[in-house]
Amino acid sequence: MERNQVYNFSAGPSVMAEPVLRRAQAELMNFGGSGMSVMEMSHRSAQYAAIFAQTKEKLIRALGVPDTHAVLFLQGGASTQFSMVPLNLLPENGCADYAVTGHFSGNAAKEAAKYGSVHLAADTAADHHTRIPRQEELCFSDHAAYFHYCANNTIYGTEWQYVPRTDAPLVCDMSSDILSRPVNVSDYGLIYAGAQKNMAPAGLTVVIVDKRLAGKERAETPLMLSYQRMIEKDSMFNTPPCWCIYMLGLVLDWLEEQGGVAGMERLKAERAKKLYDYLDNSQVFQANAQPGSRSDMNVTFRTGSEALDAAFVKGAAEEGLLNLKGHRVTGGMRASIYNAMPMEGVDALLDYMKRFEVAHHG
Amino acid sequence: MERNQVYNFSAGPSVMAEPVLRRAQAELMNFGGSGMSVMEMSHRSAQYAAIFAQTKEKLIRALGVPDTHAVLFLQGGASTQFSMVPLNLLPENGCADYAVTGHFSGNAAKEAAKYGSVHLAADTAADHHTRIPRQEELCFSDHAAYFHYCANNTIYGTEWQYVPRTDAPLVCDMSSDILSRPVNVSDYGLIYAGAQKNMAPAGLTVVIVDKRLAGKERAETPLMLSYQRMIEKDSMFNTPPCWCIYMLGLVLDWLEEQGGVAGMERLKAERAKKLYDYLDNSQVFQANAQPGSRSDMNVTFRTGSEALDAAFVKGAAEEGLLNLKGHRVTGGMRASIYNAMPMEGVDALLDYMKRFEVAHHG
Repeated sequence: MERNQVYNFSAGPSVMAEPVLRRAQAELMNFGGSGMSVMEMSHRSAQYAAIFAQTKEKLIRALGVPDTHAVLFLQGGASTQFSMVPLNLLPENGCADYAVTGHFSGNAAKEAAKYGSVHLAADTAADHHTRIPRQEELCFSDHAAYFHYCANNTIYGTEWQYVPRTDAPLVCDMSSDILSRPVNVSDYGLIYAGAQKNMAPAGLTVVIVDKRLAGKERAETPLMLSYQRMIEKDSMFNTPPCWCIYMLGLVLDWLEEQGGVAGMERLKAERAKKLYDYLDNSQVFQANAQPGSRSDMNVTFRTGSEALDAAFVKGAAEEGLLNLKGHRVTGGMRASIYNAMPMEGVDALLDYMKRFEVAHHG
Repeated sequence: MERNQVYNFSAGPSVMAEPVLRRAQAELMNFGGSGMSVMEMSHRSAQYAAIFAQTKEKLIRALGVPDTHAVLFLQGGASTQFSMVPLNLLPENGCADYAVTGHFSGNAAKEAAKYGSVHLAADTAADHHTRIPRQEELCFSDHAAYFHYCANNTIYGTEWQYVPRTDAPLVCDMSSDILSRPVNVSDYGLIYAGAQKNMAPAGLTVVIVDKRLAGKERAETPLMLSYQRMIEKDSMFNTPPCWCIYMLGLVLDWLEEQGGVAGMERLKAERAKKLYDYLDNSQVFQANAQPGSRSDMNVTFRTGSEALDAAFVKGAAEEGLLNLKGHRVTGGMRASIYNAMPMEGVDALLDYMKRFEVAHHG
């Protein structure tokens, strides 16, 4: 079946690049002349081992992961990391710093409090999470085991525009902006990201961990939630999510063709600038996030009228502009413009917004 | 690319039915006229919600899951269940009975011992795990929270031919024989299974749990490892492994066309009988598992000579009979003949074995 043209602004799982999907389709029945689908391959087979190793190598190259850090392909999503981080990095009677700038970082802090003392280095709830705290606002505790923050808040549409500085290792949830810009991996003790926004279909969690931080997990840590075990077993203590890892490899090939993370950074800045420039000059729409804190991945906005918001989302869907409804906790609209969103999608959205504005601004 | 004919005897991930893969390929770019791949769909969208609900309904129908039990679609494989079971079902200072009949049930028992007292109701190590204990050999403790066993031992090629009886709820790892035969789900407190043998690509774990057993998890249970939370959230506390769940739906459609689990049971008995009958009359090959304990899913055998075993595996691969090498802990050969293995594959293997026997039996 041919692909009819829609633009999918879903916050995740989300749009994938069409060439990636076409390649997956072409290879689905018979990968590389093996007579097998990747979905059928033993994870211990030479063929799959090559896919796995190459995908890991591509990710190391794309992000410039240094030898000090291990790349892990895990399962369970970021929410599993909310537990895995303190189980492995937070000593009994230890303390960790958390910045709460949205829903998921709040969940992460709450989960960590089950295992030790959690100090909030920042909490932007009073500002309805419309902004990211400045470096000088961050209040760190002494001797924290780590500082956890979420680089991009999918629901609220805010994003850290700087790397926070503190003495403790940085632990960063990059689920919704990984691979959208260069990062200096050495700045981080641990990076984790659910794959289903910029990387691969849902079911894969990428962890990049400084190996020097691993190996101190608590006695009660479940078998599969030890970073050290997964480092030792190269993510294959048991069967990994093989298909998602394969898809990540295809995405990384495509990403390299587009100029890598530097190319992605240029594109994302262009996509986001178009939308925010329009929003800041609109008589009907307002951006939710404050300037300086705005996400290049999730653009949240509203009209101020729930009825008008609903009409906007409904009309958009009729034009093939899908999944623009904001998260239930924020209301309004959200346009998620991840790596794989074509510029034509942003232009089509802008065109619709302008027509909507003309129709509804008396 | 056309699919050249190979037969994949991998123990998992393993062969999938060709009509299932063809349908996945046909729908990959544009599911149901949505303009999107299933891999791109928001797990909260109406389209994906329908795929999810229908897949769950098909599984409930295929296995006859009663209303007392919840069906969960989780991640992390059976090894994550090794922890999740005691974290949720084993009270502090409680005791659980485990039967150790192979590698994975041994791992399960070892993991449970981290959380409480584990009593071995049986251990077949002295028999090199070549057999399953009889009911009258099982030695249960008083007041066990549950009795855990593994229905089919993938590595050793043994399978429980009966449902053990005890006062405690049965917890059964059915990773490698689920959907190969009818089960009376009400007999079980909890069934779990990694998907990558009879159900779907790797990355999905199916749990069927008696809801009355859930809700008593320990305080230290990680967020994502609570059965109760997953029941309440219908497996969507966070993003589930959407593609694997979709693939399970396609497999279940195919399974229904083949006569459901009753049809699978007839086919598996026929496949296994052909191989065991031949092995029991061979002058070159011997079956590993003892009669009455033999697996219909994983047929393990050997020649008695490591050099001959290696020659057998190498020659088989040259004929497109793949992944026949036994697990490193047992050596020898293993033919995994899951639901999706066509009878032609078994016949091709038998034909090769007979020719090998003629060539190597002087």
